[in-house]
Amino acid sequence: MSAIPAAFAQRTAQLSDEVTRPFPSSRKIHVQGSRPDLRVPMREVTQAPTDGRTGREENPPIYLYDTSGPYTDPTTQIDLLAGLQDLRGAWIAERGDTEPLAGPTSAYGRARQDDPALDHLRFAHRRTPRRARAGVNVTQMHYARRGIVTPEMEYIAIRENVRLTELRADPRYARLLRQHRGEPCGAGLPEVITPEFVRDEIAAGRAIIPANINHPELEPMIIGRNFRVKINTNIGNSSLTSSIEEEVEKMVWSARWGGDTLMDLSTGKHIHETREWILRNAPVPIGTVPIYQALEKVDGRPEELTWELVRDTFIEQAEQGVDYFTIHAGVLLRYIPLTAERLTGIVSRGGSILAKWCLAHHQENFLYTHFEEICEIMKAYDVAFSLGDGLRPGSIADANDAAQFAELETLGELTRIAWRHDVQVMIEGPGHVPLQRVKENVDKELADCLEAPFYTLGPLVTDIAPAYDHITSGIGAANIGWHGTAMLCYVTPKEHLGLPNKQDVRDGIITYKIAAHAADLAKGLPGAQIRDNALSKARFEFRWDDQFNLSLDPERAREYHDQTLPHDSHKVAHFCSMCGPHFCSMKITQDVRDYAEAHRLDDVRTAIEQGLKEKADEFRREGAELYKAV
Amino acid sequence: MSAIPAAFAQRTAQLSDEVTRPFPSSRKIHVQGSRPDLRVPMREVTQAPTDGRTGREENPPIYLYDTSGPYTDPTTQIDLLAGLQDLRGAWIAERGDTEPLAGPTSAYGRARQDDPALDHLRFAHRRTPRRARAGVNVTQMHYARRGIVTPEMEYIAIRENVRLTELRADPRYARLLRQHRGEPCGAGLPEVITPEFVRDEIAAGRAIIPANINHPELEPMIIGRNFRVKINTNIGNSSLTSSIEEEVEKMVWSARWGGDTLMDLSTGKHIHETREWILRNAPVPIGTVPIYQALEKVDGRPEELTWELVRDTFIEQAEQGVDYFTIHAGVLLRYIPLTAERLTGIVSRGGSILAKWCLAHHQENFLYTHFEEICEIMKAYDVAFSLGDGLRPGSIADANDAAQFAELETLGELTRIAWRHDVQVMIEGPGHVPLQRVKENVDKELADCLEAPFYTLGPLVTDIAPAYDHITSGIGAANIGWHGTAMLCYVTPKEHLGLPNKQDVRDGIITYKIAAHAADLAKGLPGAQIRDNALSKARFEFRWDDQFNLSLDPERAREYHDQTLPHDSHKVAHFCSMCGPHFCSMKITQDVRDYAEAHRLDDVRTAIEQGLKEKADEFRREGAELYKAV
Repeated sequence: MSAIPAAFAQRTAQLSDEVTRPFPSSRKIHVQGSRPDLRVPMREVTQAPTDGRTGREENPPIYLYDTSGPYTDPTTQIDLLAGLQDLRGAWIAERGDTEPLAGPTSAYGRARQDDPALDHLRFAHRRTPRRARAGVNVTQMHYARRGIVTPEMEYIAIRENVRLTELRADPRYARLLRQHRGEPCGAGLPEVITPEFVRDEIAAGRAIIPANINHPELEPMIIGRNFRVKINTNIGNSSLTSSIEEEVEKMVWSARWGGDTLMDLSTGKHIHETREWILRNAPVPIGTVPIYQALEKVDGRPEELTWELVRDTFIEQAEQGVDYFTIHAGVLLRYIPLTAERLTGIVSRGGSILAKWCLAHHQENFLYTHFEEICEIMKAYDVAFSLGDGLRPGSIADANDAAQFAELETLGELTRIAWRHDVQVMIEGPGHVPLQRVKENVDKELADCLEAPFYTLGPLVTDIAPAYDHITSGIGAANIGWHGTAMLCYVTPKEHLGLPNKQDVRDGIITYKIAAHAADLAKGLPGAQIRDNALSKARFEFRWDDQFNLSLDPERAREYHDQTLPHDSHKVAHFCSMCGPHFCSMKITQDVRDYAEAHRLDDVRTAIEQGLKEKADEFRREGAELYKAV
Repeated sequence: MSAIPAAFAQRTAQLSDEVTRPFPSSRKIHVQGSRPDLRVPMREVTQAPTDGRTGREENPPIYLYDTSGPYTDPTTQIDLLAGLQDLRGAWIAERGDTEPLAGPTSAYGRARQDDPALDHLRFAHRRTPRRARAGVNVTQMHYARRGIVTPEMEYIAIRENVRLTELRADPRYARLLRQHRGEPCGAGLPEVITPEFVRDEIAAGRAIIPANINHPELEPMIIGRNFRVKINTNIGNSSLTSSIEEEVEKMVWSARWGGDTLMDLSTGKHIHETREWILRNAPVPIGTVPIYQALEKVDGRPEELTWELVRDTFIEQAEQGVDYFTIHAGVLLRYIPLTAERLTGIVSRGGSILAKWCLAHHQENFLYTHFEEICEIMKAYDVAFSLGDGLRPGSIADANDAAQFAELETLGELTRIAWRHDVQVMIEGPGHVPLQRVKENVDKELADCLEAPFYTLGPLVTDIAPAYDHITSGIGAANIGWHGTAMLCYVTPKEHLGLPNKQDVRDGIITYKIAAHAADLAKGLPGAQIRDNALSKARFEFRWDDQFNLSLDPERAREYHDQTLPHDSHKVAHFCSMCGPHFCSMKITQDVRDYAEAHRLDDVRTAIEQGLKEKADEFRREGAELYKAV
């Protein structure tokens, strides 16, 4: 217990200031479910009243889906050394279908546990891992298919609704609830999400709940196209840079800004120990690519990988609590030559590891040939598959080609197998795709993979903007999300160039929150427009603080405003720096409203709307006399 | 001649360093047209060779459309005090249809010229303004409709092609020329743009060439959906901040990063003098909203505006050389009440000025009632209309509503009138529109406005991200560009919050270059993918410098790379910071290629592709034996 915990103790103090402070005018609330230990956190943003000519109008609080976990709750004591509270422990235990193990059952897990040289790196309060009792299946899909609504499903229903039912019954929200008709994809978005709807989507395989029984700290969430579009962030050390503390801090930072899940893609030192620290402090599901760690175990030589080694890695990680595994089981030997004439070959790390192995051994991908055995592991811990797209395009030129789509068809075949085991599946997608070919990717995925949730990296819609690839990919992400992708894997400004720092992570996340929200609006997710409407109303009424507070990044919005108009008095000024105090279009609009009221708006408007088409000429003749006549 | 010129003299020195340095490995070339004074500038980016196992492969230079004017050409002496070279003066003079005036004919222009208090602010080398001879029409549309190909049209044809014909004849480009099929909008994109095609698009009104006869310094460019998608940037002082020097520097900065046109939206002091400095140094077309300046002349009181005052402002600006005017002639009295129940009323400055005037006088918009007289002014100088959308939505909630679309129909009516005068027209569009309703905007514009070029502000696809609205709007911009918008007006991160600084301008421009290029790719603009292909090839081959140099922002790409791997040796390293030197997917791909070559790729691939559908089962049985059998 030396160096690292001490570093964490310091880091904890830092988190209080930078990462754990609540957002302005926000507080954490909890919506109570059907049992005392089912309390769903949300963020409540309070607003200032509007002082209008006709008196004061109260602006109601706005409720936001909150991924930040307890970190933004000042009433919670954060202790990274102890880890988060065991939120789901009782739910898992009372199902009575799992049993605690004496310790890790993987050879590697035991070796790491027994190595005294790692004592100073190790998370202190490790929990004994659990596993399904022999022959039992503990996946959320298995419960759903037997008609069971788990506490996780109820939690998710409450979480996804974000109090929509109460808001609909409250007249203060009537105007804010107005929303454009969306273009829903798939089975259709319900007006209210019930626990039974969650269950049915899980049972059908159209959604997944990544929730390993060994990650009881997580706040359950769902990935499916009939729910809010989610985003994933990536962190991970490499052999060149980064430490455990940095990775844990990035995880908390990611959750703060809105990351729904997080992948630990570490390829450097102490992967096992880093993951333990992350999992014990993570309120969001954690995914990994186990083959990355397996490769480290054979000193980076893909040809030396064996099924036994990789299997041990799966068990090692499952017993730590990883919620989903990216598994490149669709990179088949016969597909590899299809990539040879590509402009950018194989760019997926997992894909190229497997390709190298297949070529070296002249054998079929062992993840494919052992897929049923992998399913047995997955269902003993409820780890979800994220079937990797190892042959995804690395450039616009290679998009939607034979290699990519051949693999996608195989992922569909594997989905069928996984579902026979009631193991949850999502499907990974590209990558680099020009805008006009984005929709084709979703359509084909839904067809080939039987509507299993699609989880895409961007895609980038052009290759020419390194240093801005959060944006090139955010364009693709918004579009692919609209057409039915359930989760968007973020890209930071450093993509293709280097490892992201904290500000890059923030920029990547906010860009993807934009893309996901644009997709929610486009699909017509009920209630999605409330936040836009509230923010626009605040903007129009010069409630500057409310405009900042309702935004995706209140801190930066305020900072940017302050760069031009730093004084507090400007936060209540009825003008902004674009036009200056002398003239303001929004102010003039108030005159329009007064005028319209004075001239019996409804009569005028009805007459005009009826006459708009037929009577255009007549109106034109009347011209300036119109209002006098009313 | 005191304060300002001295400041400029200093500023010029600064520009040399920050703004005028050429991009790395780039040089300005000129493609010769049919006459000696028709030389079209482009940027040539040279590439390093590829050192492969099979020997050295030369990588040919890549040619880029270049908006930066002479500023990035070290062989040109830049002198902001003297202004740019008079590129088009001879072309205009030899048409023999214009005459030099004794001086400004607007009352305001004369007053400013004669005011000694402005001597220290005034651009020194003013040219005498020109005007069409009495009764003559000097618009590019007028020439086109008479079958004339002007030097401007030839210039544009050469510029838009970016040497595509030569590249097609050169075997070194064969692979780089491969491109996805696009989804073209409208009349269809030609394989090669000829001067005659330019002429015909102008004649049909589907494109415009903004090129005032009093702005001979500009490098001609075209705005139309069968050409490269363009972007506009906005600058302008306000009564709160900014000076003349800052605005001129922003103009050069904007051109450097890729702004195709620029609007000077100044509302503060010395609007007339600021504009003169900008125009004399601008290689790109300049647009304005003349009503902004007119409003300043009546101390910000819209109700005091008169047709006579605004008319004088049009002439004042036309004689300075403004290339297009935003004119809100579609804000009709009868449409104003349609905005009263909006969430965010009227947010266009021009729109609200006109609305206020109409309400104050109970009269029809004087820009509408005097529209034919405006056409007479426009055609005497070849100023193009940018018909303003004064009733554009200021929030997602107000998108595509009755007010917006009523105005759009009126803009169609005005387009017909302008075209009767052979005056060029583009149509401005929103604003804030959710993703699923973006295409409807273009479709309606093309239908109502007879395919006149559409010029949109974003649109923002959500309201919830102030401080990131370059991104929210970049998503909308890429989509609306794909569907047929000809020019995208940029949005900076400071939108809704404050005035952009230089870095904000750069971020906004690069975001819009991404959107415009994504739209070009999506439409299938011939040759558009060359740059993506070349950059991706460089990336795949670890030619780091070439990857940076071919990117939209070479400086930032290099800077981001250096943050992780600062050493020069890393620029030639066959790995990147994401995976480290130990393992690299791109390296493995080379093994795949070697393997495929060794195993007679073509035979394998042909067999596999033919069999992919029908023979999937057979292949699966053969499995690992496949390659042994070949």
